[in-house]
Amino acid sequence: MTQARRRGRGGGGAARRAERTAVSFETAPVIERKIPNLEMLSEEALDIIEANAEQVLEEIGVAFVDNPKALERWKAAGAEVTGERVRIPKGLARKLCATAPSEFVHHARNPEKSVTIGGDNLVLAPVYGPPFVRDAAGGRRYATIADFQKFVKLAYMSKWLHLSGGTICEPTDLPVNKRHLDMLLAHMTLSDKPFMGSVTEPSRARDSVEMCEILFGKEFVAENTVMTSLININSPLTFDDTMMGALEVYAEANQASIISPFIVGGAMAPVSVVGTLTQVLAEVMAGVAYSQLIRKGAPVIFGTFVTSIDMNSGAPTFGTPEAAHITNGAGQLARRMGLPYRSAGSFCGSKLPDAQAAYETANSLNMGLLSGVNFMLHACGWLEGGLVADFEKFVLDADQLGALHHMARGVPVDENAQAMDAIREVGPGGHYLGCAHTQANFKTAFWRSEVFDYKPFETWEEEGARDSQTLASARVEKLIETYQPPALDPEIRSRLEAYIAEKKASMPDSFM
Amino acid sequence: MTQARRRGRGGGGAARRAERTAVSFETAPVIERKIPNLEMLSEEALDIIEANAEQVLEEIGVAFVDNPKALERWKAAGAEVTGERVRIPKGLARKLCATAPSEFVHHARNPEKSVTIGGDNLVLAPVYGPPFVRDAAGGRRYATIADFQKFVKLAYMSKWLHLSGGTICEPTDLPVNKRHLDMLLAHMTLSDKPFMGSVTEPSRARDSVEMCEILFGKEFVAENTVMTSLININSPLTFDDTMMGALEVYAEANQASIISPFIVGGAMAPVSVVGTLTQVLAEVMAGVAYSQLIRKGAPVIFGTFVTSIDMNSGAPTFGTPEAAHITNGAGQLARRMGLPYRSAGSFCGSKLPDAQAAYETANSLNMGLLSGVNFMLHACGWLEGGLVADFEKFVLDADQLGALHHMARGVPVDENAQAMDAIREVGPGGHYLGCAHTQANFKTAFWRSEVFDYKPFETWEEEGARDSQTLASARVEKLIETYQPPALDPEIRSRLEAYIAEKKASMPDSFM
Repeated sequence: MTQARRRGRGGGGAARRAERTAVSFETAPVIERKIPNLEMLSEEALDIIEANAEQVLEEIGVAFVDNPKALERWKAAGAEVTGERVRIPKGLARKLCATAPSEFVHHARNPEKSVTIGGDNLVLAPVYGPPFVRDAAGGRRYATIADFQKFVKLAYMSKWLHLSGGTICEPTDLPVNKRHLDMLLAHMTLSDKPFMGSVTEPSRARDSVEMCEILFGKEFVAENTVMTSLININSPLTFDDTMMGALEVYAEANQASIISPFIVGGAMAPVSVVGTLTQVLAEVMAGVAYSQLIRKGAPVIFGTFVTSIDMNSGAPTFGTPEAAHITNGAGQLARRMGLPYRSAGSFCGSKLPDAQAAYETANSLNMGLLSGVNFMLHACGWLEGGLVADFEKFVLDADQLGALHHMARGVPVDENAQAMDAIREVGPGGHYLGCAHTQANFKTAFWRSEVFDYKPFETWEEEGARDSQTLASARVEKLIETYQPPALDPEIRSRLEAYIAEKKASMPDSFM
Repeated sequence: MTQARRRGRGGGGAARRAERTAVSFETAPVIERKIPNLEMLSEEALDIIEANAEQVLEEIGVAFVDNPKALERWKAAGAEVTGERVRIPKGLARKLCATAPSEFVHHARNPEKSVTIGGDNLVLAPVYGPPFVRDAAGGRRYATIADFQKFVKLAYMSKWLHLSGGTICEPTDLPVNKRHLDMLLAHMTLSDKPFMGSVTEPSRARDSVEMCEILFGKEFVAENTVMTSLININSPLTFDDTMMGALEVYAEANQASIISPFIVGGAMAPVSVVGTLTQVLAEVMAGVAYSQLIRKGAPVIFGTFVTSIDMNSGAPTFGTPEAAHITNGAGQLARRMGLPYRSAGSFCGSKLPDAQAAYETANSLNMGLLSGVNFMLHACGWLEGGLVADFEKFVLDADQLGALHHMARGVPVDENAQAMDAIREVGPGGHYLGCAHTQANFKTAFWRSEVFDYKPFETWEEEGARDSQTLASARVEKLIETYQPPALDPEIRSRLEAYIAEKKASMPDSFM
């Protein structure tokens, strides 16, 4: 960076370079797909999967663990309850799911950054959950709240990222029972993008709602969705009380939940694509139906987190064709249910932001866009099977998200796009670099990366033969140097801080 | 590799590892797509492009340079010829194109490796044309015939690659006017996969045919296609005599040609997608029509090489959304013409096989598969905008081609795939690792990379924290160590060598 800066003080070329590497705080609107979805499964295959999923719910059922109230609710709705097993007669789950909205608005404190989730939209959110962080300088290490805050800043500054995210990484230096407060405070104060709530305890979900009431106002929160939170299903077919407790809190408060089977294929679901889709659909139907038992019309997302497995080692594998098939098929199932769909992300198994990481990630990002995903969690920064949030990979992936934005725009066919005058002007053997059409359109014609190297070999070599990771380190540093927080009413900030202080004082630290 | 081998002499785990890393000489059949094509352009847009392309051919025309015979042929066919400009009345080019076959067989000397090009098939060929090679140990350097031979061996050993290729790299240590002989000899003797002929001079195309007559027998070559060669159009709208001379030789001999605009968008075509597609279609129609003027029914491929440009620096950029739009739209146009389609590849602008290279490459490979490409040249090994053939990237990309093969297989829906018994057997809260369905299917259920790292962090670190490039270096070394040439009749070999010796003696070396 310092090198690039020093060079930047030169002449006109330097000014141009400075302009094109200038940091922006702009956030692009939600991706509205102007390209068709890829649909790999036939109607017949989808019919079979739906019939089989109903069969699974009726015959095998699902388990709601340590949650007597849920069992009561299911009984009252017409399910057959034996112990903790809930068997759902054919048609019932689907009928209950019908009250879930097909799209909803997730509000940001900056109204320009509110997003509509569903339809042809695609909303992008950063990596979620890793206990470790990594960068080239510091290597792999346990994540801290300082790392978390740094990621929130990077997400805020990414033009292509719509959400500030949730648990971008686990701040392991803070007590387990209190860290959600600091994470939420970071999302609320360091960014003005929409964010996700805590799900690790029903009480923490309640804290999340209460902090939102301070930030947005109590009335606003009562009437609007201000959080979309991640409710994982304990696949196969198991709904634990922690996650369901959080879902109950959010659904009651009309806040959104992603109801998401968490599947390593061959371990938590059958090794076959159609078998996995059957289980995914059964699980999502049971989960979404349950959300509607809590509150009819509560906003939910049909989630699918799925990877394949390396049957030699048992390691999860990412960016694989089978994961692509499942991601694609689940999208078709979600659309048939009329629900927003969450899947795909910057998934990879690599330990470094190297070629493996990028192949795997690009495979998954592309399939996510083409499979009609509406909410892409983990859209940037994921490394090592989700154990690590990587700073360099975060900005590399976030940059690639720009390519998804542009891809989704589709192909204009108007007179300017037809460019017949340009073809006439240039003719055989000419070139288009200086022609009128090029002059008029070149600034917006082509997406360009803000991280990649496009220099001639000799220049690149002179400047240190930097690889993608090194270029990304420089970008991270530059973004963090340039960061400025969005404005926030100081009174709201004080109230948030007071709320947190009181909460923290009310209980001893726990690291369990 | 030596390390891996030493480890391989251990116990049962070592035996399993040895089995799964064993080198195979198997070649997978041509990819037959069982998934639908993605089609981004509407029928209306395609109609507009087709009408505009006809307009371009009639009004602006194309230039056939230094090629009086071609001008005669065009005149005789009904085109309006002024100087070197050929204006083709609406409908004529399309009518002439109609005699080109929609698919054809490209024969290999090993009949099991012959490929059918067209329809739902996808055939994969390695990188073509770079003057430089690169690997981690030796850095970037001018390519030699030894490098070329090493690439032919790697292509031969890749399960997923169907062609041995053409000019995988330029053997710059050999005279320009003779190197085609040594390249062809390498393809013919070190591999038994189908290959491509020389196009740098009509006489070299003739040499290619004559060498094939030795390898396959004169009669066989007269009746069958044994080469598919790359004929680039000098975009915009220009057909030079060298390339057309080679096309003439091949079409007369009923050998296949890829007729391919070579376009950096914004330089050799308009900056807009639809404008570029219009020019591409006009150029391909003129080229294919010309091939049919030479010989009705000569096999040809609708080619499209296209990249976008970084308007800041003028550098070509790869794996971009605009390139994807064009690749996708050109596929739709090719299918409407009923011609096999060539596009996409392991395109990247990076100087190293790093994350940038892999993102860009994966974007292009995926779009190629989904755009109905039938012939993918440059499917592995391309680096630095095509200036470099990279050994490590070659095996990394070739490995990713396995993912394309598996993706294209689509999703089986039979009873075994439905896995209802597995879901019953495992039930809520269980796991599938040991269940009967998993046992029966795990070996073929999931694609796995043969290069990537799937190890636990600690093992990976202990073994030297190797990145993708380092793992790929080891794989290159292992493949080359294990290489064994396919059998070849010694008499044929002697005749090939004698042919080459005679040719070489017949003219002085030229390095121009």
